[in-house]
Amino acid sequence: MLNMIETKIPFNKPYFTGKETDYIKDAVSRGKISGNGHYTQLCHDFFEKKYGFKKVLLTSSCTDALEMAAILIDIQPGDEVIVPSYTFVSTANAFVLRGAKIVFADSRVDHPGIDEDKIEGLISSKTKAIVPVHYAGVACDMDKVMDLADKYNLFVVEDAAQAIDSFYIGNDGVKRPLGSIGHLSAFSFHETKNIISGEGGMLVVNDERFVKRAEVIWEKGTNRSAFFKGEVDKYGWVDIGSSFLPSDITAAFLWAQLEHLDDIQSNRKQIWETYYSGLKIWAAKNSIRLPFIPDFSTNNAHMFYLVCKNEYQRDFLLKKFNESGIFAVFHYLSLHKSTYFDNKYIGKSLERSDFYSETLIRVPFYINLPVENVISNIVTLDIN
Amino acid sequence: MLNMIETKIPFNKPYFTGKETDYIKDAVSRGKISGNGHYTQLCHDFFEKKYGFKKVLLTSSCTDALEMAAILIDIQPGDEVIVPSYTFVSTANAFVLRGAKIVFADSRVDHPGIDEDKIEGLISSKTKAIVPVHYAGVACDMDKVMDLADKYNLFVVEDAAQAIDSFYIGNDGVKRPLGSIGHLSAFSFHETKNIISGEGGMLVVNDERFVKRAEVIWEKGTNRSAFFKGEVDKYGWVDIGSSFLPSDITAAFLWAQLEHLDDIQSNRKQIWETYYSGLKIWAAKNSIRLPFIPDFSTNNAHMFYLVCKNEYQRDFLLKKFNESGIFAVFHYLSLHKSTYFDNKYIGKSLERSDFYSETLIRVPFYINLPVENVISNIVTLDIN
Repeated sequence: MLNMIETKIPFNKPYFTGKETDYIKDAVSRGKISGNGHYTQLCHDFFEKKYGFKKVLLTSSCTDALEMAAILIDIQPGDEVIVPSYTFVSTANAFVLRGAKIVFADSRVDHPGIDEDKIEGLISSKTKAIVPVHYAGVACDMDKVMDLADKYNLFVVEDAAQAIDSFYIGNDGVKRPLGSIGHLSAFSFHETKNIISGEGGMLVVNDERFVKRAEVIWEKGTNRSAFFKGEVDKYGWVDIGSSFLPSDITAAFLWAQLEHLDDIQSNRKQIWETYYSGLKIWAAKNSIRLPFIPDFSTNNAHMFYLVCKNEYQRDFLLKKFNESGIFAVFHYLSLHKSTYFDNKYIGKSLERSDFYSETLIRVPFYINLPVENVISNIVTLDIN
Repeated sequence: MLNMIETKIPFNKPYFTGKETDYIKDAVSRGKISGNGHYTQLCHDFFEKKYGFKKVLLTSSCTDALEMAAILIDIQPGDEVIVPSYTFVSTANAFVLRGAKIVFADSRVDHPGIDEDKIEGLISSKTKAIVPVHYAGVACDMDKVMDLADKYNLFVVEDAAQAIDSFYIGNDGVKRPLGSIGHLSAFSFHETKNIISGEGGMLVVNDERFVKRAEVIWEKGTNRSAFFKGEVDKYGWVDIGSSFLPSDITAAFLWAQLEHLDDIQSNRKQIWETYYSGLKIWAAKNSIRLPFIPDFSTNNAHMFYLVCKNEYQRDFLLKKFNESGIFAVFHYLSLHKSTYFDNKYIGKSLERSDFYSETLIRVPFYINLPVENVISNIVTLDIN
């Protein structure tokens, strides 16, 4: 093999700007490393200013942000929530924890994201919310989703776990940040995301009606935020809630990353473009599809994936990659076919979701990846 | 005033051993800063070995550990859970989130912890669990609690938020670590605790039956742990759950603290003893009670508190302390009188819980506190 990779290429390498631990030390010296401290506030301000989010609350995970959303829209047992089947378990689990019945939607033909044209057929009198997932940071067609929400009086919770710094271009030509369109949105800062804090996430509240209650639910169901603003003279238990807020250690780590957001994004976009141009001919020759970005979406270079022609080719390719030291991975398994949902799913077959479950491969993607090296290795693999 | 304190004494100062950020950098260099990494494993092993806990899982908070416990004992709407009213909101909220009805117990005469002799009268056919809270790290009388659990077939979830490195001496004379006695236990590593990671906690599973499911619930309801142990070839959605696991950044911080556990405890115990002997005469003169440690409990020096003779004295003392630069605070407000519970509480009046709500003061307590200085300031305050 001509371009044997000397050192193995992991799937992910967490990026470290170098300032994270300085800020953590600073948080300690400020005397506060629990939640809602100095660095938490810096992160909140950053996101609210940069993306025009009405209200931001850092959370311990994107899962936590989705759980906050489920509480805020007051999910009750029996309420239905429409979720793509091709997504991470938390997209559904957060609503199941509040008693929701999950109604699964299929993926698009051209992209693993939810097929917006299939949503209306799934709406019933019990539907309370739609949860579009911006897979790979690629926007769902939010005009279609929001029109349905308006028509049927539903809430929209954007699962923007992978979608930081990505945008939707609406029918009106306006470019809006993902996460700013639905009533509520959830982001992830898990170590595999563009901006990281190991585990971590954030809730975005775009609908003013939810702002005050979000602060309460975030602080274990207490009115502690109001207390510190001087609005009440003691704080106590006023609502359900959890300890959704991360430590200021986590926020300090995140803040160091946010300072480098533009550099990180530019490095990732270059890697993405190099992957795309370098693999184009090879992919076409082998009937492998590269990522599709619709006209209504920007690309935040969250991941690079391949869609194989079938499961056999996918498994063979994964084996070849891993043998050559390139740690590629498959992604989601259709949730409607999960062990948990097995006996409960009574809907239509969701063939595209199953197709992506069987054929999609994520290739290594991280800051300073030796992408040329990876590409030259991939294109010389004997996969036929 | 003779001993005016030059610099203000905060209520808490997070302790930093100096190694926390080295370990965080090491976690990054290992290529994994999400949950269940190298440092998480070190912390798990430490606790299991040192305290003989059957199974430990770090969590993002003690609240999260309590929520895991509520899921594990399968709380269903209408199940009753007995909780002291004098506790933090999460002791109750974690069970309310699963639909439980909270039944509040009063405090002991000699200590703010649950009055073990009042529990049996609160048990009904719907009771599913008792949640004793080891207030200030002081043990509840666990023989009494466990006997009731055996007699009525109930689960015991120890809220050991404040109880790290504290012990219960049973009727058999055996000294057992708090958190090792109930079916499940929850600890906190919030910045105000003895051992800290800003926010953070851990679930202890003492009942073997819960071990496998705890691992699933911890990992968002997936069988990812089994996957990494090679027990299954793909992992997917098998149960409800959440992202309860903290990042390895948080675990790395905690690990640095655990290495110094003995030093931390010895420093804190010295501060506690100095407070006790230094305030004894002053307290007696002013009808103020100092902390009581029953014979069946050790003292982990989590906090030092004063019980004033009435609310008027408490408020006056707090004002005097704060004016002199000593930042003392009151503690819990009876949960059965909270805004959230206001219309729902139909039980007996809980006078001791209300009494501690009105009279208890926590004084500054942290590693290297200038305790002699604080004491000499307190005893010369004009409070009559």
